[in-house]
Amino acid sequence: MPATGSYPVTERNKVRRLHERGRHDRASVYAILDAAMLCHIAYVIDGQPYCTPTAFWREGDHLYWHGSSASRMLRTQKPGVPVCLTVTHLDSLVLARCGFNHSVDYRSAMCFGKAHIIDDAAEKTRALDAMIDRFYPDRNATLRPSTAQELKATMLIGMAIEEASGKVRNKGVGDEEEDYALPIYAARFPVVQTLGPVEPCPRLPAGVPYPAGLAGFTPGRRLDELMLENQKRLYGDD
Amino acid sequence: MPATGSYPVTERNKVRRLHERGRHDRASVYAILDAAMLCHIAYVIDGQPYCTPTAFWREGDHLYWHGSSASRMLRTQKPGVPVCLTVTHLDSLVLARCGFNHSVDYRSAMCFGKAHIIDDAAEKTRALDAMIDRFYPDRNATLRPSTAQELKATMLIGMAIEEASGKVRNKGVGDEEEDYALPIYAARFPVVQTLGPVEPCPRLPAGVPYPAGLAGFTPGRRLDELMLENQKRLYGDD
Repeated sequence: MPATGSYPVTERNKVRRLHERGRHDRASVYAILDAAMLCHIAYVIDGQPYCTPTAFWREGDHLYWHGSSASRMLRTQKPGVPVCLTVTHLDSLVLARCGFNHSVDYRSAMCFGKAHIIDDAAEKTRALDAMIDRFYPDRNATLRPSTAQELKATMLIGMAIEEASGKVRNKGVGDEEEDYALPIYAARFPVVQTLGPVEPCPRLPAGVPYPAGLAGFTPGRRLDELMLENQKRLYGDD
Repeated sequence: MPATGSYPVTERNKVRRLHERGRHDRASVYAILDAAMLCHIAYVIDGQPYCTPTAFWREGDHLYWHGSSASRMLRTQKPGVPVCLTVTHLDSLVLARCGFNHSVDYRSAMCFGKAHIIDDAAEKTRALDAMIDRFYPDRNATLRPSTAQELKATMLIGMAIEEASGKVRNKGVGDEEEDYALPIYAARFPVVQTLGPVEPCPRLPAGVPYPAGLAGFTPGRRLDELMLENQKRLYGDD
């Protein structure tokens, strides 16, 4: 199912600053989320906010991650714990003719919902297997199966996206009209996150071939493009 | 002054999961912070957590950033607003022989403190000028000076680090001893964030030279190494 529709705009996900950069349609938000492997998650314990980085992935309007330091809280708040899951891609450094117009090009998405623990063994196994294949195509079937102990030691957390917003800046230098003629250097430096050359495990037995599913993991490959491609490969245009 | 000593370890900044990866000394935390331009900041409004990406920088044990969507809250809570500022560097993807041992190498730091608005005009001007030079050596003196209106439109936020922790994983594939002999491909893919070739502003007047301060901004340069170098250039080993 292609991504359709928009998230409701509320006080929580309204884009306040520079609102012309805001996006509330699912397709825009999904494109930002699916290009990422890591997110940052904000949650609150006893009034104190925490911001934790973690790997995550998306299935439709649901987000998943595992291994949270909020585990105590998640265990005790059965109705779910309010969180904000944010993804950010830095796309360029923007050097303008005055300090005020210095900026960066970026893509970011904020998702609001209530996190809950997924305890059901079948759903947990299915989701964790999907996590591997979402990042690394066709990999799960090649692995040593998880043990009961490993599954028990893994906390899987899920969240339905209640509201979300995206924010995109992609315009490079934007100066005041009267400043362009000044003899001041101004430029954009693109920023990319890429893979280096693979480093096979030093203890890899002789004759174990490089997997076909990792054909896209080439030196210099952009991580955001690769993650987006792998998401579509597993889930299609959902 | 070189970075010395450690942060107190409390319930808030104790590293709970995989605590052998934890760091509480200032030198380790600073090295992670100073290699970054962007952070994610968690804060709470009416019980709802928010996670916002923003540019930030460090002066000693103080962190600064500007332009916050928490501005309403910051204006009304004069004693300061509790926040958690987190920086994450993704260093590699780790593909192991079972799902459980898949991982990433990374460096992350979490800093706790109370955010407050810096309204003093002299301090605000000084800090915003420093922000430019911290990211782009010697650049501020070359710019069109900020106007009173621009300064007024910029919200500068500061925070003393009360507690912090760092977390580092840098070991590549770590499998169960009995799994190494299995005929399963395992490897690490390094991940780097780098600069692309500079794109001068299309409206740059003829004859404006490339600034000497940007000599380090070469194609392929790692952003984390460049940011760390620029921090030391402005502030030394503080």
